[in-house]
Amino acid sequence: MAYIGIDLGGTNIAVGAVSEAGSILAEATAKTLAGRPFEDIVRDMAQCVKKVMGKAALREDEVRSIGIGIPGVAEEKTGTVFNCTNLGWVNVPLRQEMQKYFQKPVFIDNDANAAALAESCAGASVGCKSSILLTLGTGVGGGILINGKPWAGAHGRAGEIGHMILVPDGVPCTCGRSGCVERYCSGTALIRAAQQECCNFPDTVILQKAGGNMDRINAKQVIDAAKEGDASALRVFNSFARYLAMAINNLIWFFDPEIIVLGGGVSYAGSFLLDAVRSLIPCHQMGKPLPVPPIVLARLGNEAGIIGAAMLGK
Amino acid sequence: MAYIGIDLGGTNIAVGAVSEAGSILAEATAKTLAGRPFEDIVRDMAQCVKKVMGKAALREDEVRSIGIGIPGVAEEKTGTVFNCTNLGWVNVPLRQEMQKYFQKPVFIDNDANAAALAESCAGASVGCKSSILLTLGTGVGGGILINGKPWAGAHGRAGEIGHMILVPDGVPCTCGRSGCVERYCSGTALIRAAQQECCNFPDTVILQKAGGNMDRINAKQVIDAAKEGDASALRVFNSFARYLAMAINNLIWFFDPEIIVLGGGVSYAGSFLLDAVRSLIPCHQMGKPLPVPPIVLARLGNEAGIIGAAMLGK
Repeated sequence: MAYIGIDLGGTNIAVGAVSEAGSILAEATAKTLAGRPFEDIVRDMAQCVKKVMGKAALREDEVRSIGIGIPGVAEEKTGTVFNCTNLGWVNVPLRQEMQKYFQKPVFIDNDANAAALAESCAGASVGCKSSILLTLGTGVGGGILINGKPWAGAHGRAGEIGHMILVPDGVPCTCGRSGCVERYCSGTALIRAAQQECCNFPDTVILQKAGGNMDRINAKQVIDAAKEGDASALRVFNSFARYLAMAINNLIWFFDPEIIVLGGGVSYAGSFLLDAVRSLIPCHQMGKPLPVPPIVLARLGNEAGIIGAAMLGK
Repeated sequence: MAYIGIDLGGTNIAVGAVSEAGSILAEATAKTLAGRPFEDIVRDMAQCVKKVMGKAALREDEVRSIGIGIPGVAEEKTGTVFNCTNLGWVNVPLRQEMQKYFQKPVFIDNDANAAALAESCAGASVGCKSSILLTLGTGVGGGILINGKPWAGAHGRAGEIGHMILVPDGVPCTCGRSGCVERYCSGTALIRAAQQECCNFPDTVILQKAGGNMDRINAKQVIDAAKEGDASALRVFNSFARYLAMAINNLIWFFDPEIIVLGGGVSYAGSFLLDAVRSLIPCHQMGKPLPVPPIVLARLGNEAGIIGAAMLGK
């Protein structure tokens, strides 16, 4: 049996046929062209599904289900997408529309939850019953698994770690509040802090790597400069790691997962990031050892979206 | 069938026989006398159980199980208490010791989780599959229910909401770190803020209520003075409510429970507290309504410990 996984993004639709073991058998993509009627987008999704089934030589009775990871909030019972900001979707009957093309079970979940599920089926957290995936990219996303299943919360809004408040009255956030985790722990936050540092220390290696143009600074340059020992880059990186450790620490005290997985662009920093964060998570209290979940890197990269969506049906 | 619930505290052992519906049929108590060998404490617990069965006229075959709520961390599989700071317990084989007296299933969980379970069986969160109980007392405790079951986490340390960091580099905490939720949202925090306020504004009604003695200020006096409109008390109370709202807000963004229940001494403030906190939880984002779980008061008071421990076996 195989499972179809659809990673629906604001820019691209990525579709894959996935094996029982969680590996991708065939892939197809299309442009999302957000703003079109949802029926057109679902039609293109369905065409990709057919293409993928052809590539993988799958008969329809060899496909168990279709899973869709969306950048938004869906209601499990009805298969309706409440709200998908990037696509401008509000109350879209996604399952119903997809079932016009395929008479299969259709599962829909948030893309971060799907990625967390993918890592637990075929990536960094295989065998773990509870886990949190933190994606450190343009923003900060979160996926939660409880007893091996994605946890969407009672109202579909769980896992929004990026909008937990880390610093009361801190840096204003795009969400309208201030001091959100996303303002301190995303790739965007790392870049912004580096830009400020460059104003004070224009000799920094960061600025050299960006060709002398502050607007071209990216997270990789900051991380590489820090790895090379540049004092400014280390200041920026260490402050970033300190905030990230606080955010992770809070997740541990509240939820105590079996494992924490870091993904997204900033996880490019690899063990340099892991070592910094781990050293800042308290593992003793009043002389007694405190159990700390392993903090590891995501393994599946961009494939997590397809694999996780597919595994929603497993 | 009935269930025995034992609320094991640092000062008292409270034991009750509890009905299927979650009401207490009979009670007995003994002093804990912490510091004694654990075998002596368990013997006294067992004597209380026998007393309670006598009072409720229960035969041994009418008791399904014994549940014990402890102020610490236990391992479900083995029934061993890892660590119970108030009692000085480390690696105590509690289940095994209790089964010397009763050949019944023995369940052990953290007391805050037990209280959360009690509220969901017979209190404020009946029928809710997921909930968080926050106890606002000397410290801040937390109990989490997922799919109707207490969630202890992968290493037994979940629910320690009092030690999530609310203010980076904030007020030093007894745990050795700083800025913990407990330093801003406990009864102790409310009293401390009131004492500081009294230094600056000695005319405050708070100080009158405490007989002019700052050391006698308690949470009830601060709340009552705020309800009466005293400016100093209102400043203290509003700041308290603002921090509590931030802490609750973070739980909602991360976990999105069906309901949030507030218990402990500070919840005496009732709707005065609820109204203040609710008004500070964002319920809109970019013009769209955000679902917010109901925030309600605990109903079972001190009985939650016994009822919840008993319901561990249900």
